[in-house]
Amino acid sequence: MPSAISVITLLTDFGEQDYFVPSMKGVMYGINPQLRIVDLTHQVPPHDIRYAAYVLHACYRYFPDGTVHVVVVDPGVGSDRRALLVSTSRHFFLAPDNGVLSWILDNETNVEVRAIENKQYRLDSPGTTFDGRDVFAPAAAWLTKGRVPGSYGRLIRDYVTLSRQEAKIIGDTLVGEIVYIDHFGNLISNITTDDLERFRSVVKRDPKLITLGAVAIEGVKSHYAQGATGIPEALINSNGQLEVFIKQGRAVDRCGVGIGGKIEIR
Amino acid sequence: MPSAISVITLLTDFGEQDYFVPSMKGVMYGINPQLRIVDLTHQVPPHDIRYAAYVLHACYRYFPDGTVHVVVVDPGVGSDRRALLVSTSRHFFLAPDNGVLSWILDNETNVEVRAIENKQYRLDSPGTTFDGRDVFAPAAAWLTKGRVPGSYGRLIRDYVTLSRQEAKIIGDTLVGEIVYIDHFGNLISNITTDDLERFRSVVKRDPKLITLGAVAIEGVKSHYAQGATGIPEALINSNGQLEVFIKQGRAVDRCGVGIGGKIEIR
Amino acid sequence: MPSAISVITLLTDFGEQDYFVPSMKGVMYGINPQLRIVDLTHQVPPHDIRYAAYVLHACYRYFPDGTVHVVVVDPGVGSDRRALLVSTSRHFFLAPDNGVLSWILDNETNVEVRAIENKQYRLDSPGTTFDGRDVFAPAAAWLTKGRVPGSYGRLIRDYVTLSRQEAKIIGDTLVGEIVYIDHFGNLISNITTDDLERFRSVVKRDPKLITLGAVAIEGVKSHYAQGATGIPEALINSNGQLEVFIKQGRAVDRCGVGIGGKIEIR
Repeated sequence: MPSAISVITLLTDFGEQDYFVPSMKGVMYGINPQLRIVDLTHQVPPHDIRYAAYVLHACYRYFPDGTVHVVVVDPGVGSDRRALLVSTSRHFFLAPDNGVLSWILDNETNVEVRAIENKQYRLDSPGTTFDGRDVFAPAAAWLTKGRVPGSYGRLIRDYVTLSRQEAKIIGDTLVGEIVYIDHFGNLISNITTDDLERFRSVVKRDPKLITLGAVAIEGVKSHYAQGATGIPEALINSNGQLEVFIKQGRAVDRCGVGIGGKIEIR
Repeated sequence: MPSAISVITLLTDFGEQDYFVPSMKGVMYGINPQLRIVDLTHQVPPHDIRYAAYVLHACYRYFPDGTVHVVVVDPGVGSDRRALLVSTSRHFFLAPDNGVLSWILDNETNVEVRAIENKQYRLDSPGTTFDGRDVFAPAAAWLTKGRVPGSYGRLIRDYVTLSRQEAKIIGDTLVGEIVYIDHFGNLISNITTDDLERFRSVVKRDPKLITLGAVAIEGVKSHYAQGATGIPEALINSNGQLEVFIKQGRAVDRCGVGIGGKIEIR
Repeated sequence: MPSAISVITLLTDFGEQDYFVPSMKGVMYGINPQLRIVDLTHQVPPHDIRYAAYVLHACYRYFPDGTVHVVVVDPGVGSDRRALLVSTSRHFFLAPDNGVLSWILDNETNVEVRAIENKQYRLDSPGTTFDGRDVFAPAAAWLTKGRVPGSYGRLIRDYVTLSRQEAKIIGDTLVGEIVYIDHFGNLISNITTDDLERFRSVVKRDPKLITLGAVAIEGVKSHYAQGATGIPEALINSNGQLEVFIKQGRAVDRCGVGIGGKIEIR
């Protein structure tokens, strides 16, 4: 699968002010100078595994075959939690064994999960506090040089997974929650197009009323420009999830609801 | 014009915390893995078309021939406003038809403006809210693979342009306004070296006094280090525009003037 | 040393909202389209030379041979301070002559320091306020095209260096100071593993008590996960320096100590 030109993506909670991210890139270019490196984001709130899982899930599929996705969001760095290498039919994923790859493992086919055990792909460093640079960066770069997953470590089945937060139909109401807030202040729920389809087939009509805290929204718009200025509206966003937005405004500032806030559809 | 190695630049108001920017990069590398992608900035204030137009105008000319510049700052995303492909003698530009390319259209020669109509260069996506990923990213990447502008859509003339904010000479006074504030808190005006030349030829002397709110500045320095610490000074900045700065300080915090504030030269 | 594919790193206080950083990248790709460009960080606090020196020192060695490191943090831009080209046995460094390369000059062997004098490697620009774009970017890119350091200018010895801030043993106490605060709010001191070794050999025992402001810490942990939640702890960080952290918290918010704060080990 790895071609002459390979893409590695990086997703961390390191921020961009320190030496952390560039150290990883230096190590990777030292092993494979042909690489393309793409930053997913380094602004994951510190140690927020669910935030990282959402961002990864929302964009990984747009990368070419053979892409290596590296996630370093890791409250347990330096402890004995394992580093994982996951291969799927199209991509590779490297991450700490803390559940951050859960949505990938749910979605993908031909999934193999390994513990990274081979010391040969580690950087030889004195301390034990920077696995991003010393473990994940070299392991990822060696994959793009054609090293096979089997050489990294044994297959495992007892990896950590995140608990699901799925929308539920209770009576004639679809109940979900806010799982992400984006740069524009849009409130993104865990209600998917599939959930809405299920609602229609169970309740036998289209959704009419959406409630989120004290805010009531009628119907679902098809794009942002359809909203009336200053009024919260809903649409299905580009990741297939129901989102509450205010045209050219910030829904999060208006709705008084944050991550975990309940959203109901009738 | 496209060579084996091509540069695409990205200018958006997406911020860097979400999946928006990396999704675009994934799509582009999938089409052309040889690309170099350069972020102009993703910190355009949400929907601020003039801010984006300023940043693009200040740096596009430093990129090599054949560079494709992609701008996605778009209050009207998903509505029926068009996507444009502009070609000039050196570069390509893709942007929504909202005036963000106005200064380029003013400046450049051999300009052709097209509406992007060919569905072949679109990503096939369910929703209609992410034109950056679904329209602009693939259209830009296909240009670097040698697709010709003529294949994207028909030439148009009725594109949107921003109103000019030009400095004016009124009596013996050159009147301009603040159009941009940079990371260092410098206040950048719309007064150009050409305006100052015009002032000299009309008023028959060098500018003496610059006033900005309650602040009066004498003469124009040639570089930042010439300023006295803590005192607002003026110079011609690296984009050829008159700028008010405080040596190692923040002029914006001191002058009590923001975007749109009047600046006068006598 | 320069190969077909070269890496240039950029370290500035320009932020990422303006045209400054992308202008530099445009100039460099125009000279060498084969480049890989890595951002170290652009979030150096404005004019903070010591911050930039720390970040560079902490990651430069992880980059491949032939890498060109460009630093533009420069309170004196446009004045007559010189631009330097430093070559070592592995890397090149370009920076203003203000001491930002001091830790590199201390560390490396086969060091040659030159003033960049050859106008041939300058961009021809009207103003004198943007040396990053007009001096450093083209000079760096031409190095990756094989231009030899000798062609840039004469060797000099009277370059500026920063004063050292070294930890000292006073009686049975090792006295250092906080020199850097990272994205996670960790407080990084100037106490190195060598200092601790020196302490052990002078005082004839392991460090027992670390004090920082009103906070007392017993012993040194080996990684972050060992800390107790909410309690300040110490470890040797991935750059070999003693660091005070709070597991999944922000030590800087808790300890009431900033840059320059005294840290003592007994």
